[in-house]
Amino acid sequence: MPLPTSIASEQEEPDYLKIFMQIIKKLEKVKNHGNVAGYIPELSRVNPDKFGVHLTTVQKHHHFFGDSDERFSIQSIAKVLSLTMAYNLMGESLWSRVGVEPAGTSFNSLIQLENDRGIPRNPLLNAGAMVICDVLFTLLKDPQQEFLQMLRNLSGNPTLNFCSRIAQSEKATGYKNAALINLMKSFSNIKNDIQTVLDFYFNLCSVEMTCQELARTFLFLANNGIDPYSDNRILSSSKSKRVNAIMQLCGFYDEAGEFSFKVGLPGKSGVGGGIVAVHPGKYSIAVWSPRLNQKGNSYKGMAFLEKLTTLTRSSIF
Amino acid sequence: MPLPTSIASEQEEPDYLKIFMQIIKKLEKVKNHGNVAGYIPELSRVNPDKFGVHLTTVQKHHHFFGDSDERFSIQSIAKVLSLTMAYNLMGESLWSRVGVEPAGTSFNSLIQLENDRGIPRNPLLNAGAMVICDVLFTLLKDPQQEFLQMLRNLSGNPTLNFCSRIAQSEKATGYKNAALINLMKSFSNIKNDIQTVLDFYFNLCSVEMTCQELARTFLFLANNGIDPYSDNRILSSSKSKRVNAIMQLCGFYDEAGEFSFKVGLPGKSGVGGGIVAVHPGKYSIAVWSPRLNQKGNSYKGMAFLEKLTTLTRSSIF
Amino acid sequence: MPLPTSIASEQEEPDYLKIFMQIIKKLEKVKNHGNVAGYIPELSRVNPDKFGVHLTTVQKHHHFFGDSDERFSIQSIAKVLSLTMAYNLMGESLWSRVGVEPAGTSFNSLIQLENDRGIPRNPLLNAGAMVICDVLFTLLKDPQQEFLQMLRNLSGNPTLNFCSRIAQSEKATGYKNAALINLMKSFSNIKNDIQTVLDFYFNLCSVEMTCQELARTFLFLANNGIDPYSDNRILSSSKSKRVNAIMQLCGFYDEAGEFSFKVGLPGKSGVGGGIVAVHPGKYSIAVWSPRLNQKGNSYKGMAFLEKLTTLTRSSIF
Amino acid sequence: MPLPTSIASEQEEPDYLKIFMQIIKKLEKVKNHGNVAGYIPELSRVNPDKFGVHLTTVQKHHHFFGDSDERFSIQSIAKVLSLTMAYNLMGESLWSRVGVEPAGTSFNSLIQLENDRGIPRNPLLNAGAMVICDVLFTLLKDPQQEFLQMLRNLSGNPTLNFCSRIAQSEKATGYKNAALINLMKSFSNIKNDIQTVLDFYFNLCSVEMTCQELARTFLFLANNGIDPYSDNRILSSSKSKRVNAIMQLCGFYDEAGEFSFKVGLPGKSGVGGGIVAVHPGKYSIAVWSPRLNQKGNSYKGMAFLEKLTTLTRSSIF
Repeated sequence: MPLPTSIASEQEEPDYLKIFMQIIKKLEKVKNHGNVAGYIPELSRVNPDKFGVHLTTVQKHHHFFGDSDERFSIQSIAKVLSLTMAYNLMGESLWSRVGVEPAGTSFNSLIQLENDRGIPRNPLLNAGAMVICDVLFTLLKDPQQEFLQMLRNLSGNPTLNFCSRIAQSEKATGYKNAALINLMKSFSNIKNDIQTVLDFYFNLCSVEMTCQELARTFLFLANNGIDPYSDNRILSSSKSKRVNAIMQLCGFYDEAGEFSFKVGLPGKSGVGGGIVAVHPGKYSIAVWSPRLNQKGNSYKGMAFLEKLTTLTRSSIF
Repeated sequence: MPLPTSIASEQEEPDYLKIFMQIIKKLEKVKNHGNVAGYIPELSRVNPDKFGVHLTTVQKHHHFFGDSDERFSIQSIAKVLSLTMAYNLMGESLWSRVGVEPAGTSFNSLIQLENDRGIPRNPLLNAGAMVICDVLFTLLKDPQQEFLQMLRNLSGNPTLNFCSRIAQSEKATGYKNAALINLMKSFSNIKNDIQTVLDFYFNLCSVEMTCQELARTFLFLANNGIDPYSDNRILSSSKSKRVNAIMQLCGFYDEAGEFSFKVGLPGKSGVGGGIVAVHPGKYSIAVWSPRLNQKGNSYKGMAFLEKLTTLTRSSIF
Repeated sequence: MPLPTSIASEQEEPDYLKIFMQIIKKLEKVKNHGNVAGYIPELSRVNPDKFGVHLTTVQKHHHFFGDSDERFSIQSIAKVLSLTMAYNLMGESLWSRVGVEPAGTSFNSLIQLENDRGIPRNPLLNAGAMVICDVLFTLLKDPQQEFLQMLRNLSGNPTLNFCSRIAQSEKATGYKNAALINLMKSFSNIKNDIQTVLDFYFNLCSVEMTCQELARTFLFLANNGIDPYSDNRILSSSKSKRVNAIMQLCGFYDEAGEFSFKVGLPGKSGVGGGIVAVHPGKYSIAVWSPRLNQKGNSYKGMAFLEKLTTLTRSSIF
Repeated sequence: MPLPTSIASEQEEPDYLKIFMQIIKKLEKVKNHGNVAGYIPELSRVNPDKFGVHLTTVQKHHHFFGDSDERFSIQSIAKVLSLTMAYNLMGESLWSRVGVEPAGTSFNSLIQLENDRGIPRNPLLNAGAMVICDVLFTLLKDPQQEFLQMLRNLSGNPTLNFCSRIAQSEKATGYKNAALINLMKSFSNIKNDIQTVLDFYFNLCSVEMTCQELARTFLFLANNGIDPYSDNRILSSSKSKRVNAIMQLCGFYDEAGEFSFKVGLPGKSGVGGGIVAVHPGKYSIAVWSPRLNQKGNSYKGMAFLEKLTTLTRSSIF
């Protein structure tokens, strides 16, 4: 792996490069537990020992290390971006369709959905993200194209696209997601055609990005809703804070408490092994390490972030 | 009600007094929904229209309004303080006895406890707080006295005491709590005598304090674990952050997401109508309004805090 | 309504006709509660005050009353017949795919299915009946045709057929059933194509029959597995008893206890308002009254059968 | 073990002795799986290889084998007798306090109780049996003495008594039962003092009886509610049938379906390894074998009864 590199730094900023090196040394001694997600071939074929990290400050300074320029499947991380689109378009009335409470059960569970008559507890659960897709289909002519456009603008990479190979694979094995969306439809909380909404959902999660692109994409959430690269307002300040609050409470499936407790930043993980976290007012960071712990979150990614916020004392708490 | 009063202010500080006045004007137009907790006479007899707020900055500046000097039953707010004691004494091994995840169900639920073999999801649930009491009985000779001493030191009021009238009332009707602790004992997650632990638990929640005392008591959590009045370290910096993280995810029963989403501060509520919230690095605040919403949290207290963090842009997100 | 009619009677037999009259007199005084199933137009359009009953003894004596020659949608009653086919073909290995325990929750619940990793608790639940359809598709070339053939043979009516209008309607609104089958597929407990199995399932429940036809069709379960009309063995004696046991424990959704308690016969109901019950060694009986109680079983049908077994002392207990 | 003995026999009766011998030969080849209940010393100390069976016909003929004269702890079997008392005294209004539906979950579960606001699903669950005890305390001056009197009359053994050693042991470890009764009290479905009711409950289950005594005690349920020894009516015919229906659907914890399916008789098991079953109109039978299967029912006892009803074709279905 190449040495850590720092493109820019300021006096107030911690020496992130040095801190990255310290953490990596410590982590080398720790066995990298867990397994790569294996339910579709596209994820299981990834080299399990890949590791990349990229931190971008709101001043647009960059600090990165390892395989930070390699693409991986962002999976559920994409749910924050579709939520951003829907929340921006629909405002607070969105919350009649989906809640903002942590799930308290495993990320696919149908139990809650049945008890709450088809209203998912939050938009970062699979079921909740499908409701968001459904909302976008009601509000927009071509939500898939608009989603891609937003992603390209925020990441600075105009070639980003859905990965049909991954989307196809997910679809072919996505019986649990089909169960979830049918159950919600039975409670009338899906308004559009099930297959159309599911296709969008699988496309959404199929995008492949690098740590660098992810960190830049999420920077607006560290900057009160404004993308520092374009100075475009993506979300109002208040909505930006609220999306962060949702990530804090719901971003890690059944391990949101653990992540808050140990890392202390709003964030979102994906089964591709990526984690994005945001320090409001300071930076956004993306880590990638494909081995997952038992709860489905990147083992080494969580460990890295825990040490980072400890050494930089940058937990929001 | 008396006019808002500000004892001290700094240039960087928002004009809290003025902001208080703005919020109170807005809230006057809103109907004060909800009912006072009615399951014991001691709580039901409270004047439902009481309202007090007290904000103390880490610089020890005070801003307050209304019935901020009147005592009320702090109830579940006390659970944060017993957690502080146990966590300080026992360190991270505490988490083998109780989790750090949001509950996802109502605050008394036995379902989760049965599924997880007697391990409560977090220490701010009734069941979790009883485990904390049990831990303190194992570690300390006279945990009740030590708890009082801590409370007196932090609040600056050496006369604080348990209210035996309230504790007695809670005990006489506390069948659900008795069910919870017996269930945990059946899974061997209670080590001491059930009655002894329950007595401590009911005493704990029986303390009556003012908003002023509560804000001061919780100030160490806004100050990296150090009490600014005595300069005593109450918790390590890391542990202080972690207690805040637990409050953020678990402090409002089944409404933690809602509070995070709207207020954006770590906090804890009690069925007496009190809410304490903490802005790390800045202030702690206590609000009191006895009418509760359907989830058991102070209706007006939550509304006040939502407007406060909106107007001062002081959500941690 | 025409007067009750009795085609044949024996000395040992109770005077069923007279008893029918007594019961009908009593029921006239009782308000006929409940509503016709309304989730598809084909069911909701039925005249709610229809009432028919037909009892056939193992000696092939017939006793009937009211609209016993009118066709109605047999719905879930069909599940006993598909179970009979699958059990006969597959023997006891069938029970690795579906259980024999009462559900303990409402008839569509996904909770149990998720907890038990895709194994439905019994073959009379929607989910269990779909597994049975799946089994038949694995074992037979043309299960739909063979099912119809069995039905025609047993009922003595060679014109019985699926009702495509009803099947189509069910399919168009059957999101909960689609959720159930997708969930089971995600646990690999559905082996064939989901759509194919669902089509069979909806066809199965779409058949329309008269009380007379139903009573005759189920007579083999009152006769140790042998159809008295053809002397054909439909099931072994042991398997016939076991199907009756399953009906006894699982035939009435969340009201199996109530039916056993009050009626004391193995039976199966359908949301079309039909109920079939079997007295082993004596008779089978079909009742039809479209108004359903809150648990989805025919209100008047249950009341009729309760009075019948009380007056004839013919509960199996 | 002594040879099987038959005191009397009639021509219509199967040769039970011979059948017993056949079954025992078959069972000898089968490994006796399972373990003796170990949660209290009094149960764990029993010789796991004990085996006894006693069948009594309504004509008072006796057929027995093995350790049928040895006392063992009847445990939950007693719940049928307390139910009989309460139902006889209170009639159908009893069912506002406890249901008649199978549980669908493990026998101690608190989940159902919480969902149904303190109403147990049936009187043979621990929670349901406690409600029955509570009912008896409301209706009778000295329910414990009256219960003993009933037991002595029915069994023909005037020396039967509670076993304080066992009751004491159960009480000292009965935290889950304490959780259940406290939960029901919190929903106001326990009217008397918790400790008093619990004491009765533990006494109830502590009685030790032989297979011979048990078979005789339950004979009234095979005889339409009349005890053939005294010709006393214990229950009305209708109530007797209904108690049998409840045993059929709820007598074997989470294995009621399995027992109905394989044995086909109403019955009740206890963790002491006893099972009582009733063939209405014919006989009652008690089997004892202390090794329990995973669901807590006697492994060999169930196997014996399955073979008995198969060989005698005496399933009620």
